[in-house]
Amino acid sequence: MKTIKAMKWNGWGDPDKEYQVFSKPALFPFLMKYLGVSQKDYTARKSKNEVVLPKANINLPFMNAVQEFLSQEQIATDDETRLVHLYGKSYRDLIRLRNLQFGTPPDAVLYPKSHQEVEKIVAAAILNSVALIPFGGGTNIVGGVEVMKKGNGTPYTMAATLNMQQMNQILSIDASSLTARIQAGMLGPDIETALNAKGFSLGHFPDSFEFSTLGGWLATRSAGMQSDTYGKIEDMAISIKIVTPKGTIETPLVPKGSTGPDFNHMIIGSEGVLGVITEAVMQIHKLTKEEYLGILFPSFTSGVAAIQQCVQNNLTLTTMRLSNQSETALGFALRSSPPLKTYKDIMHQFKQKIALGFLKKFKGLDIESTCLMIIGIDQSTPDFSNTKAQILKILKSHGGINLGSGIGQHWYKGKYDYPYIRDFCMDYSITVDVTETSTLWSNVMPMYEAVKERMEKALANESHPGYLGCHLSHSYQSGACLYFTFGKKTAAGNELNDYHRLKGIIVDEILKWKGALSHHHAIGYEHLPWYRDYVGDTSVEALKGLKSALDPLGICNPGKLIPQ
Amino acid sequence: MKTIKAMKWNGWGDPDKEYQVFSKPALFPFLMKYLGVSQKDYTARKSKNEVVLPKANINLPFMNAVQEFLSQEQIATDDETRLVHLYGKSYRDLIRLRNLQFGTPPDAVLYPKSHQEVEKIVAAAILNSVALIPFGGGTNIVGGVEVMKKGNGTPYTMAATLNMQQMNQILSIDASSLTARIQAGMLGPDIETALNAKGFSLGHFPDSFEFSTLGGWLATRSAGMQSDTYGKIEDMAISIKIVTPKGTIETPLVPKGSTGPDFNHMIIGSEGVLGVITEAVMQIHKLTKEEYLGILFPSFTSGVAAIQQCVQNNLTLTTMRLSNQSETALGFALRSSPPLKTYKDIMHQFKQKIALGFLKKFKGLDIESTCLMIIGIDQSTPDFSNTKAQILKILKSHGGINLGSGIGQHWYKGKYDYPYIRDFCMDYSITVDVTETSTLWSNVMPMYEAVKERMEKALANESHPGYLGCHLSHSYQSGACLYFTFGKKTAAGNELNDYHRLKGIIVDEILKWKGALSHHHAIGYEHLPWYRDYVGDTSVEALKGLKSALDPLGICNPGKLIPQ
Repeated sequence: MKTIKAMKWNGWGDPDKEYQVFSKPALFPFLMKYLGVSQKDYTARKSKNEVVLPKANINLPFMNAVQEFLSQEQIATDDETRLVHLYGKSYRDLIRLRNLQFGTPPDAVLYPKSHQEVEKIVAAAILNSVALIPFGGGTNIVGGVEVMKKGNGTPYTMAATLNMQQMNQILSIDASSLTARIQAGMLGPDIETALNAKGFSLGHFPDSFEFSTLGGWLATRSAGMQSDTYGKIEDMAISIKIVTPKGTIETPLVPKGSTGPDFNHMIIGSEGVLGVITEAVMQIHKLTKEEYLGILFPSFTSGVAAIQQCVQNNLTLTTMRLSNQSETALGFALRSSPPLKTYKDIMHQFKQKIALGFLKKFKGLDIESTCLMIIGIDQSTPDFSNTKAQILKILKSHGGINLGSGIGQHWYKGKYDYPYIRDFCMDYSITVDVTETSTLWSNVMPMYEAVKERMEKALANESHPGYLGCHLSHSYQSGACLYFTFGKKTAAGNELNDYHRLKGIIVDEILKWKGALSHHHAIGYEHLPWYRDYVGDTSVEALKGLKSALDPLGICNPGKLIPQ
Repeated sequence: MKTIKAMKWNGWGDPDKEYQVFSKPALFPFLMKYLGVSQKDYTARKSKNEVVLPKANINLPFMNAVQEFLSQEQIATDDETRLVHLYGKSYRDLIRLRNLQFGTPPDAVLYPKSHQEVEKIVAAAILNSVALIPFGGGTNIVGGVEVMKKGNGTPYTMAATLNMQQMNQILSIDASSLTARIQAGMLGPDIETALNAKGFSLGHFPDSFEFSTLGGWLATRSAGMQSDTYGKIEDMAISIKIVTPKGTIETPLVPKGSTGPDFNHMIIGSEGVLGVITEAVMQIHKLTKEEYLGILFPSFTSGVAAIQQCVQNNLTLTTMRLSNQSETALGFALRSSPPLKTYKDIMHQFKQKIALGFLKKFKGLDIESTCLMIIGIDQSTPDFSNTKAQILKILKSHGGINLGSGIGQHWYKGKYDYPYIRDFCMDYSITVDVTETSTLWSNVMPMYEAVKERMEKALANESHPGYLGCHLSHSYQSGACLYFTFGKKTAAGNELNDYHRLKGIIVDEILKWKGALSHHHAIGYEHLPWYRDYVGDTSVEALKGLKSALDPLGICNPGKLIPQ
């Protein structure tokens, strides 16, 4: 059995990797300035030795049934395995783990190796009323992979998590149609490595990329940093295979159809409540290389206007990501300061200082009040240099100053680091979370300003302003995605209260402005309290109709997505 | 009340317009050559005076209820009105009308003027078990607007057709977000006229454009001749409002979301079986102007390869439409021959002859065995001339010869004429119908060849080959839409037998090759016999779950889309 890539039991990412905070000398001063933390706020994380999980609750007939077709190594009931499958990686999850609160761990973890094995597991689960929770990489931050307590429509006898990472193959590539049939449990890096070797790419790079799977992306309507060009995951999916308790659905393998409602779009975003996604035929594209540039804008407003103009003039960029002032400042605080060993190091630091001085003196731009935009342009774009020139002209017309590719590359290199920084912040009692939304262009700035005003009040204390970062992460003809990050120093023991209060304020404000309840993080249970109001009673009825048709016993990921 | 645009009761289009066949001197010889028709095959269409409809079956409590909130002119039960609402415009519909076979006409036709009136009609229909059939322009060719007989799960007391054409306003335009809120009953030309006046376009131009509505497009997942750039109708819809028997759904007005299954994609393609679509917020774009060119290819294969290369190299064209040899020959047979009055006329004809002679002599291309491609390029494309040059270079590399814009304009002018020609053909006992599909690029040519071989056998008789036209109408990264037209002379009285036999053969062959059961014509009842096999039993269960959740009494367009 291929080794499963499990993350730290109580934090993000590779168990062997800690964020190298000593190489970011400006980070802690930044946190001191905004949040008022000090070295004495540090609390060491608890050791795994202290973990005591509730006992697994085994339904013997079910376990006997799955032993008929799964090997020993495909079935785990040990606490070590149950521990790394019991939560996703939301702030709430991590706080509970740090506090040794374990909710309802799965009673067993199963590792199916094929579509047929999933079908057999589902059949056995139906016979024995076993709840099934699909688990890709466990990166979900809305509670999507947590076992919910029994009761309230979740009358299961035991709960089994299906770790899908043994289904990790590209089954076929159609080079003419630019499609690949990929198993749902394949991790992001494995997909890209396999496709790149044949000259292709899927082009899906969410922040969770290193630890998340195709199945997870599909189940949550994921977006990645090249989605402006290649679409969100729902735009790339051509045919999907899902095992529901009522049977398997394999949607037609055709580019587009006019054959009733689109079953792909019922499966995508279903978050495990309709069944287990096992594979999908995805649109791929020829492997390309992007050029990343950093562009500095005098304000968030001007950067937003520049992005809107590019998009609505059909200038295609793989990435256009604009940070507001605080997030830009945080970004600069994350610059590495390597020990000045070589002449090159010294020149690099010298040039940076000169450049910033120049911007301040001649352009009137204080680096602390600017907004950084990262753009990525596919170098295989027909007529690349002309396209790039047109884009830069528009950005310049809105006050953008091209800082060149160095800063673009710096961002590219560190793009998956933020969740590690969250762990570091949590060591210092900082409550930190994210909320993303999308809205029409006419609404982007008014909503941004309103959320900013509301949250800045909520985050500040007597002495420190708190942190509200925001970036515009994805753009469409009609609007854009705003991605907020908020941080506040919290008194020990008050973390979850503070988190719920702040999350409540920001979501309420976003919904007041008619923004999306989520743009790419999904519903799970974190967003469930707002879901009914957001989609309306009749849509909830429709969803329930779909659920009872496909999962009449309610064994598929109970308690998620669908309001009671 | 605004005058309703009703088409001919027994044919396509404007009652005052007949296809000017005398201006197309090559058309009849073409039909003689391929199908063996002669002047003596002509049968005059029956007069409307001969029409006798089955008596309307009035449910008085329902009619009294709707009279409470609809004015007299919004309610019709007369035979004249019932007649033009009883079928769509499929070959089968038109043959039955010519034969004075009227199936089950609607008992009443209602003309709601607002979303609220539709809600009230639906409420009254629930109370009185009245079947409701939404009707946009009545152009449907898969049986979508026909009232189905009672019984077999359609236990209604009377059937009311909802003609939506009184809901014909653009309610608002958001110029910043490039969106427009449009009522569902607005006809194509009215939408474009209103948007064009403000400098915008929806960019949706199906063959039925002149007589079809936004609501119909959404209900059937319509495609138009600029869909390669602007997407099919499902790609343009941002928020949709639908009245279901369980209440109104208004989907979130956001560019993209991650909030469970996508309700837009449950409503789009629902063909009236979940309720009545009343309005939608649609993506619009700045009004552009296209350049249309005709390109001649030595074979269908070479033209297909050229399109695939353009699309997969991200060269965006609004239109790329490639006809096979027979369809190209038909196109040339439709050239107008105006009486040679002026020097310009004479020169035009002379130049055409010279050009064709040149192609034959120096390029070895016999016009009768070539394939014509029409391309449309948006002149506001960033860097238009360079893009155009790149496109033409690719087309040339596959043997394409640029015939210039004259032939492009000729096609553009006549692009909505084909349904009129169908009526003319039917006057001469020609069975003629269309079937469209989509498939992956790797499958396009093998499927095309197989369908061609199979159908050519089925269409030929001892003396004449029959007609099988095909064009590639829409292209995607992963594949394309093939649109087949077939024609055969039929003995009088045998039309429907011949039609069912031929339709059965072509659909069976397409499905054998895993093509889409429909790419943009929908299911209705014409494609219903194949639907269950096509989507699979579990998807049918899902759809039934959706249906019973939203329309538990089964009053919404009974007998369509959902297999019994």
